[in-house]
Amino acid sequence: MNKHLITNMTWQEYQSKIKDNILILPIGSTEQHGPHLPLGVDSMLAESYSLAIAEKINAVVAPTVSYGYKSLPASGGGPIFPGTIDLKGATVVSLVYDLLEEFLHDGWQKIVLVSCHYENEAFLAEAADLITRNQTEEFPKILLVNWWDNLSENILPLVFDEVEFPGWALEHAAIAETSMMMYCYPELVREDAITDEGIDIPPTFQQFPPSKTLIPQSGSLHTARSSTAEKGRLIVENSTDNIVSVLENELFAKVKITD
Amino acid sequence: MNKHLITNMTWQEYQSKIKDNILILPIGSTEQHGPHLPLGVDSMLAESYSLAIAEKINAVVAPTVSYGYKSLPASGGGPIFPGTIDLKGATVVSLVYDLLEEFLHDGWQKIVLVSCHYENEAFLAEAADLITRNQTEEFPKILLVNWWDNLSENILPLVFDEVEFPGWALEHAAIAETSMMMYCYPELVREDAITDEGIDIPPTFQQFPPSKTLIPQSGSLHTARSSTAEKGRLIVENSTDNIVSVLENELFAKVKITD
Amino acid sequence: MNKHLITNMTWQEYQSKIKDNILILPIGSTEQHGPHLPLGVDSMLAESYSLAIAEKINAVVAPTVSYGYKSLPASGGGPIFPGTIDLKGATVVSLVYDLLEEFLHDGWQKIVLVSCHYENEAFLAEAADLITRNQTEEFPKILLVNWWDNLSENILPLVFDEVEFPGWALEHAAIAETSMMMYCYPELVREDAITDEGIDIPPTFQQFPPSKTLIPQSGSLHTARSSTAEKGRLIVENSTDNIVSVLENELFAKVKITD
Amino acid sequence: MNKHLITNMTWQEYQSKIKDNILILPIGSTEQHGPHLPLGVDSMLAESYSLAIAEKINAVVAPTVSYGYKSLPASGGGPIFPGTIDLKGATVVSLVYDLLEEFLHDGWQKIVLVSCHYENEAFLAEAADLITRNQTEEFPKILLVNWWDNLSENILPLVFDEVEFPGWALEHAAIAETSMMMYCYPELVREDAITDEGIDIPPTFQQFPPSKTLIPQSGSLHTARSSTAEKGRLIVENSTDNIVSVLENELFAKVKITD
Amino acid sequence: MNKHLITNMTWQEYQSKIKDNILILPIGSTEQHGPHLPLGVDSMLAESYSLAIAEKINAVVAPTVSYGYKSLPASGGGPIFPGTIDLKGATVVSLVYDLLEEFLHDGWQKIVLVSCHYENEAFLAEAADLITRNQTEEFPKILLVNWWDNLSENILPLVFDEVEFPGWALEHAAIAETSMMMYCYPELVREDAITDEGIDIPPTFQQFPPSKTLIPQSGSLHTARSSTAEKGRLIVENSTDNIVSVLENELFAKVKITD
Amino acid sequence: MNKHLITNMTWQEYQSKIKDNILILPIGSTEQHGPHLPLGVDSMLAESYSLAIAEKINAVVAPTVSYGYKSLPASGGGPIFPGTIDLKGATVVSLVYDLLEEFLHDGWQKIVLVSCHYENEAFLAEAADLITRNQTEEFPKILLVNWWDNLSENILPLVFDEVEFPGWALEHAAIAETSMMMYCYPELVREDAITDEGIDIPPTFQQFPPSKTLIPQSGSLHTARSSTAEKGRLIVENSTDNIVSVLENELFAKVKITD
Repeated sequence: MNKHLITNMTWQEYQSKIKDNILILPIGSTEQHGPHLPLGVDSMLAESYSLAIAEKINAVVAPTVSYGYKSLPASGGGPIFPGTIDLKGATVVSLVYDLLEEFLHDGWQKIVLVSCHYENEAFLAEAADLITRNQTEEFPKILLVNWWDNLSENILPLVFDEVEFPGWALEHAAIAETSMMMYCYPELVREDAITDEGIDIPPTFQQFPPSKTLIPQSGSLHTARSSTAEKGRLIVENSTDNIVSVLENELFAKVKITD
Repeated sequence: MNKHLITNMTWQEYQSKIKDNILILPIGSTEQHGPHLPLGVDSMLAESYSLAIAEKINAVVAPTVSYGYKSLPASGGGPIFPGTIDLKGATVVSLVYDLLEEFLHDGWQKIVLVSCHYENEAFLAEAADLITRNQTEEFPKILLVNWWDNLSENILPLVFDEVEFPGWALEHAAIAETSMMMYCYPELVREDAITDEGIDIPPTFQQFPPSKTLIPQSGSLHTARSSTAEKGRLIVENSTDNIVSVLENELFAKVKITD
Repeated sequence: MNKHLITNMTWQEYQSKIKDNILILPIGSTEQHGPHLPLGVDSMLAESYSLAIAEKINAVVAPTVSYGYKSLPASGGGPIFPGTIDLKGATVVSLVYDLLEEFLHDGWQKIVLVSCHYENEAFLAEAADLITRNQTEEFPKILLVNWWDNLSENILPLVFDEVEFPGWALEHAAIAETSMMMYCYPELVREDAITDEGIDIPPTFQQFPPSKTLIPQSGSLHTARSSTAEKGRLIVENSTDNIVSVLENELFAKVKITD
Repeated sequence: MNKHLITNMTWQEYQSKIKDNILILPIGSTEQHGPHLPLGVDSMLAESYSLAIAEKINAVVAPTVSYGYKSLPASGGGPIFPGTIDLKGATVVSLVYDLLEEFLHDGWQKIVLVSCHYENEAFLAEAADLITRNQTEEFPKILLVNWWDNLSENILPLVFDEVEFPGWALEHAAIAETSMMMYCYPELVREDAITDEGIDIPPTFQQFPPSKTLIPQSGSLHTARSSTAEKGRLIVENSTDNIVSVLENELFAKVKITD
Repeated sequence: MNKHLITNMTWQEYQSKIKDNILILPIGSTEQHGPHLPLGVDSMLAESYSLAIAEKINAVVAPTVSYGYKSLPASGGGPIFPGTIDLKGATVVSLVYDLLEEFLHDGWQKIVLVSCHYENEAFLAEAADLITRNQTEEFPKILLVNWWDNLSENILPLVFDEVEFPGWALEHAAIAETSMMMYCYPELVREDAITDEGIDIPPTFQQFPPSKTLIPQSGSLHTARSSTAEKGRLIVENSTDNIVSVLENELFAKVKITD
Repeated sequence: MNKHLITNMTWQEYQSKIKDNILILPIGSTEQHGPHLPLGVDSMLAESYSLAIAEKINAVVAPTVSYGYKSLPASGGGPIFPGTIDLKGATVVSLVYDLLEEFLHDGWQKIVLVSCHYENEAFLAEAADLITRNQTEEFPKILLVNWWDNLSENILPLVFDEVEFPGWALEHAAIAETSMMMYCYPELVREDAITDEGIDIPPTFQQFPPSKTLIPQSGSLHTARSSTAEKGRLIVENSTDNIVSVLENELFAKVKITD
């Protein structure tokens, strides 16, 4: 029974955290992640990151948003693949807006959206902007973070030691995500199904309806070969530390100053 | 690693189930459940029921919808309580509509919504109606089920042996839900926090804004005293069996006939 | 010319009532009511109840909302029947929200929604909640009432003297509604078309698209046999009195206290 | 008991009309009509016109839509006046769209919207356009009619014999509407409250928020002096006849041709 | 480089105008204007009028809204014609609402919507009403103006010297618009394509789906014969002067008074 | 009079292009671009690129969408700056959806969205996805292109010869955009207002409400020093050529194949 999950708390326990703690909302997706990773990768990683951050700063973690915006064809394969269960953009905005409205109504001053699905981000930002756009005070403050923008530059060559880094656009179900899953949920990685398939260069345009031949039939955008649990540990720990630094700088420090 | 959860499946494993299996979507809420039960009761029970049903009929279970429509003051305490994190009605409709649209697009013919939060039901029905309203064929078919409408009449006196059955409206965080949680998630029940508080008769009207004095400050609508894990087992097993019968009658039998 | 109907008042007459009176909005539907009752039953009863209440407490009555949310298959027959002219849930919410917004803008402090169509209630509650959710004062206050929750227990055996009470879910176009229509609008009841048809037990699930064989082709969910105008009078007078008591307790008394 | 009102029909009686008859939906408003006319003028006239038309061509009449779009300041006085209970434009569109969708679903081929509130018309047209925009057949066909565009030119000098015709924009609660109310609902006209107040020229611009001094405090845009029941009869009978001619030309004739 | 267009200003130049100047938003459409005028007539004229007004009162002009609401069949030809690129009513409202919200947020006190497409007006009014409906102060003030309501009566006989004035409803791509285009954008008028086609009397009803035979296949509602650049100059200069007078009366004068 | 702009065409000229040509929709924004560039940069460049592409492949260009989605604080400065006139995400989606619906209705088979404002792209993709999501044929096809993803790698060092390339996120009103404006609209560049201000590293998180100290008060995210018209020409010509290649590959070639 994880003590950071609000789902496990009574309402009185939850209430006692509001004044001094940070609330984290993990946001994932349900979508194809190649032949070797399960559909829930983004949601599982969102929850793992959120709990790792919560452990370090004694935050609380709300139930994970398990469904997200459509992946685009060249950054996830998109609607062509069964199991990619997507929401419309307007639905993502409404869903996260409503949740933020409730958290703010309960009195939270520091809210962190932990995003593990790139295509969600424009809609998460829209929800956070709409709910705060007439706010004149600095707090309550909502931060939107992800692991890939918070990975230190020196980690990249350690992860991409055998295979060249193809850019984040193609890093879907590839070395970074596969390594993190091997570290966090090893029993869910079908290592023998990892292929060499992939595309070399992301397309320079988007196309609707999506092309059925743009990416390999397996759903792999780039090879996951050379993934290891150790690389996963490197990424998770480094990103977690960096995100914790961001939160300390942006949420704690300034609060102290204004005190 | 539960093999019924699509979150654990690769997209190819998921795809292989579509033709012959049933897809279950568990739908819960995050809301106050008195001083002795956690906020996640409805979501946890929705997932428990879904997995129990899936086990019996070899169905697959999609990620649980963990946030639901507002509880009303006299059937949950509503927005007065911190930790009651609710969606607007339109958001619930959009969310479930989008998910149903994706499941239907993937080819599912038999979809079951397992509901464990009464106030969601009008909005779940709206979503299911909107997505099927121009459909002329019998299948794909969507069923909406819950445990309380599928509890055999003879179970009621066994559960309400010491305390009189107050009607389902007041049975929120009371004997039925508490017993089920003692059976399914015993470590999450704070038995020593159970009180005798409650109201005797549900109000005959609804009031907006909600009254702050209608229900006890603890959030209990009716006492959970006399709850036991054994009663929980009785409810869960009986309702599960009855729901499975419904599914067999409405989904399998007719399919066989059309074969 | 009924003096309680705002439709008959000039704007100055209407304005003179705002400070001290109660405004009632009757809300009905247009839907099949079996072979013996007209499509307008719910709207007619909503207006009758509203005028009866208005007469006793000198309230004013706004134009009846004559179209409502879809009836569900097992509590009205639903979209299968011609003449069931339904609004989508979002439309009901917008419609009632806009009306409440205008009434509140005009300065009304005490508003009563008189509902005579069960399936409307979740959407009426949503509209009333959305318009008051950021209100911190107790007044303006909106109450949502119906006749079936405000019928005294001792009336039931008088009404169901020959036929056993099947539960309100099946009491659509059955003994209660037919008796009320015989009392209020006798010329609109085709008594010779009353049948014995009906279903015994409401289904324990909802199904989409709706089953075409669930209820009798006549649209009767339960027999209306044994209906009488006298039973209708009993129901209408008892419910009206009980609703008036609710309004006196919740609207007048508290106002006096705060004075 | 008017036999043309669907509210008075059983669903089977209603169903029997669909194949060969025309369905009329009256659409009004609830808004200030000066010190001498009631709030319901537009709805009452919409119903009167609809029934008069129905009588001549054996059509059926659905329940009147009693709430409409905002009147604009210079053509009704608008939101400044208590009792002007308006819907937002989007709500009018949704409401009428849903009704049209249901009528078309029931199989009606000829639908007539009878409009008695000028400001509704853009939104009624939008609803009718949205529901038919992908239709390639000529039928089902929806017509939108009103009395003022269907008044013969030779009637105008008979109505405006003492007072010069100020243009329809200012003819709100003035001679035409007052005369029609004196003819149709004489008991609802407060003749002694008729004033000489009004404005001479409609403004050449619209202003938001609306000016509070643009029109007289009584709500009269133009004098109703010289109104008579006889003038009302002239208008109603002439417009009704002209509308019936339109329906015969546009609905009946062409149907015959396609037979 | 026109100095009144905000598109040409840096944000600091723009900011310097907010306190003392008027902001003008030109709103047009993209729709068929017969065989002799281009699709952009309404947008071009909206921009021309806006710049002419801006020149006289030193206002600033925002980027023209180039797409508008559907023209109706009898006042533009509507969706039957290729090149009529229309927005839904809800989209026009959202678009103009968002722009007004941003202008008000930037601090503008005096905003003018210059409309050159009749069918937009109900939706522009809705947007302006929604954004100001809870405003209690007189300023910020939004005015909605067009050229046809601001044309002096004595100009009409000068313009319609050879052809009788058919009413504004039929004056689409006819003498007034053609003359203005000959004055403002002579190179875009195909004078040799002007026809005598047209309809004499606007229909007294609206029909959905639109009739394909109501108006001539060329898209002309009324002849543009006898159009001249000189007539265009007369209209533009007179309307511009009248609109400037309105702005001076409604925006400047009153501001001085409140000072 | 540019012959590629549909705004300059009659509806018959426009119609004659539909079968064989490509339709381009330029999409920009109105937002701050530092102290040296005007608010219309994105819209002007969108139109310039569209016309340059149209010139090469004989395409037609629709009126530019001049307002776009909010810039984010770290990629444009966002709502803090006056003159940043943004639409909500839902409005961008509706606007572009409606336009695409009309173009498809007119029969266009090949549509290109030319985007010059990064933050629009998620919403443009949503609109294009929603309109094509149930389409099973390859054509009609919608492509979404921008200049920065279509710039050849060898151009980058020529442009960033003095100043290091900071990544596209910070390249707002910096060297690339300033150079292109110097090439396309030299009279609109205030070269003497170019500063050295900027930030070095884009933030690794997003914050709501936006920080008021994140970027320099001038609105410059990165210095525009070393911009030249020649660099602008390089970018425009190279990107244009590359986009033309994309269009030839994706639109023309495949059409030929299916012939």
